[in-house]
Amino acid sequence: MKIAVFGASGTLGRAVVERLGQQHDIVTVGRNSGAYRADLTDIASVRAVLDQIGPLDALIATAGQLHLGPLSDTTPEQFQIGLNNKLLGQVNLVLAGQHHLNDGGSITLTSGIDSVEPIKHGSNATTVNAALEGFVRAAALELPRGLRLNVVSPNVVVESWQDYGALFPGVEPIPAARVALAYQRSIEGIQTGRVLTAW
Amino acid sequence: MKIAVFGASGTLGRAVVERLGQQHDIVTVGRNSGAYRADLTDIASVRAVLDQIGPLDALIATAGQLHLGPLSDTTPEQFQIGLNNKLLGQVNLVLAGQHHLNDGGSITLTSGIDSVEPIKHGSNATTVNAALEGFVRAAALELPRGLRLNVVSPNVVVESWQDYGALFPGVEPIPAARVALAYQRSIEGIQTGRVLTAW
Repeated sequence: MKIAVFGASGTLGRAVVERLGQQHDIVTVGRNSGAYRADLTDIASVRAVLDQIGPLDALIATAGQLHLGPLSDTTPEQFQIGLNNKLLGQVNLVLAGQHHLNDGGSITLTSGIDSVEPIKHGSNATTVNAALEGFVRAAALELPRGLRLNVVSPNVVVESWQDYGALFPGVEPIPAARVALAYQRSIEGIQTGRVLTAW
Repeated sequence: MKIAVFGASGTLGRAVVERLGQQHDIVTVGRNSGAYRADLTDIASVRAVLDQIGPLDALIATAGQLHLGPLSDTTPEQFQIGLNNKLLGQVNLVLAGQHHLNDGGSITLTSGIDSVEPIKHGSNATTVNAALEGFVRAAALELPRGLRLNVVSPNVVVESWQDYGALFPGVEPIPAARVALAYQRSIEGIQTGRVLTAW
């Protein structure tokens, strides 16, 4: 399969590229790096890069920013960071990508364990990740031509533990290479509309 | 208790005002009607109206717009209708309201049955309603002073069946007065961080 990975230079993205690259033709996409450049928050740039790449069998998004901070002083502008970046960015990949994929193709998005297990200062993260899981639940049912849509919910990964571990007390981080298996399950499997947990 | 209902002139809002008005002091708030005017999408107007009303024991939001339409031609701008209106509007009520409520007060938001039971052309609705339920799950855990936060997930109501019934085949609508009971459970009960279903 020919697969485009948006966010390929990130910690998860690199693990996904390494895993799926063993059997598939991978196209890396990023805002500032990769074989192609696109900003998921700008659907025109997503459409342009999909046109350049040509026919694809799968799309993966491992990119997206969230706001972390105390609820007591969160502003609407801070809350919109997650809505406009991680949530709408990944939604944009589906809105654009549904028209570019080969029949039977798939799209796999990325949420996070905090959609169901909230963390301190993480109300924006839980909101956005729960929203992505809801979006996938509904949007998968409207896709034509045998297209599928899933979302991987990763645990904190070992590679990010130094940066994020303090936010997840008592959590056992897992290697990004194990999270990458969930993307493989989504792409090579038959599921659709599913949250594939990697915990 | 003194309770402000944002969206008091809507179908659900009127039923909530009627039910809770039997035992509580209700302040109606709306964009274009009610004792006070505020636009939930503008946090400054929410703060201003809360300052005018003074100390409150409970806040309720029954307001919010969503986009309904086929996924195949949904635009990011259409998708943002639900994100900026129903989702961020209700989040704004929590961001502002947490600082205005009396100790032990509560906030009750409104999602919808399609957060877990998607409908045709409803990907924006499922996304937004799932997001609100995620937000409540996380934000409730950060509230100080015994403040509580829940979300009511209503079924389609009998009063709206003529407008929305075609979107919900095989659904048994319920009277708005029965949905209003869920708001009473939230406000007079002890739950927090919960989705209170009215189906």
